[in-house]
Amino acid sequence: MKESVEHGETSSKAPLSKGVSKGVSILDVILRFVAIIGALASAIAMGTTNQTLPFFTQFIRFKAQYNDLPTLTFFVVANSIVCAYLILSLPLSIVHVIRSRAKYSRLILIFFDAAMLALVTAGASAAAAIVYLAHKGNVRANWLAICQQFDSFCERISGSLIGSFATMVVLVLLIFLSAIALARR
Amino acid sequence: MKESVEHGETSSKAPLSKGVSKGVSILDVILRFVAIIGALASAIAMGTTNQTLPFFTQFIRFKAQYNDLPTLTFFVVANSIVCAYLILSLPLSIVHVIRSRAKYSRLILIFFDAAMLALVTAGASAAAAIVYLAHKGNVRANWLAICQQFDSFCERISGSLIGSFATMVVLVLLIFLSAIALARR
Repeated sequence: MKESVEHGETSSKAPLSKGVSKGVSILDVILRFVAIIGALASAIAMGTTNQTLPFFTQFIRFKAQYNDLPTLTFFVVANSIVCAYLILSLPLSIVHVIRSRAKYSRLILIFFDAAMLALVTAGASAAAAIVYLAHKGNVRANWLAICQQFDSFCERISGSLIGSFATMVVLVLLIFLSAIALARR
Repeated sequence: MKESVEHGETSSKAPLSKGVSKGVSILDVILRFVAIIGALASAIAMGTTNQTLPFFTQFIRFKAQYNDLPTLTFFVVANSIVCAYLILSLPLSIVHVIRSRAKYSRLILIFFDAAMLALVTAGASAAAAIVYLAHKGNVRANWLAICQQFDSFCERISGSLIGSFATMVVLVLLIFLSAIALARR
């Protein structure tokens, strides 16, 4: 009932409403760029990490690389996948700026954004758990901290988590923005 | 233009459309129950884990508890928070079955669902990284596998991950369902 009364007002409200919808869509594109940079920086920073210690014995050269720890390899793979997905989703997101009433394409984006949020969070927090262990060790399990020896390695893997956690926050915002766009249609 | 032409059809399409919307809302409530059970089971299974080995020296009793590893404590806390949130969101979800055109409350649910998805994924994957380490150890970092000694402890902490990963999948579906409900309004 209320809808039919308000229907006459739609034409006068339309320009403002359309402007806000366009703003939401443009923000979506910008945030996707931020997320791409975050995921890419994380993957590269982690993937290029290695440290060779200045001392070595006759048989062993003390060297630390990200792929010594399988969890850090997973981190690089997860961030690369999320980065690739975000780049692929960019054209769709740009189409939404023009066609702000799109429905099914937004639904698809929300679903995959949520899946990618899970993936990037899994990578980031698994790596964070290992980085924490590298810094602090664990007395009960008799796992010693390795950061005394591999200090620059540890700094690098700690730093590379930042981009990934930023991507995580941006993906939550992207899901919320897509939902707002759907609600405003 | 198209909208005003279709406007006359709305009344005849309404019952079917309303039925589907109601179905989506009911599925939302059911999935929330599943997610609550998953998160609660995970938190309890992990929180009650401890194993005392049958041998001990004069000074040390070999005992393993979930809070020996800070990551597993985080797992319990994360799952408890998600479980509490899901219980609190249940009334709102039930209201949506009756008021299927609700907009702002669905937006709020999508936002917090996404945030909780990130939280439960963080807990589950950080714990998974540690559990993997407990099983396999890491030669390069000189972290030994502890599962030979603490076998039932390891089985228990591995098993308790399942509920958490199930909750993760259900939360992705919940976000998607809410988006569908918003798109169908």
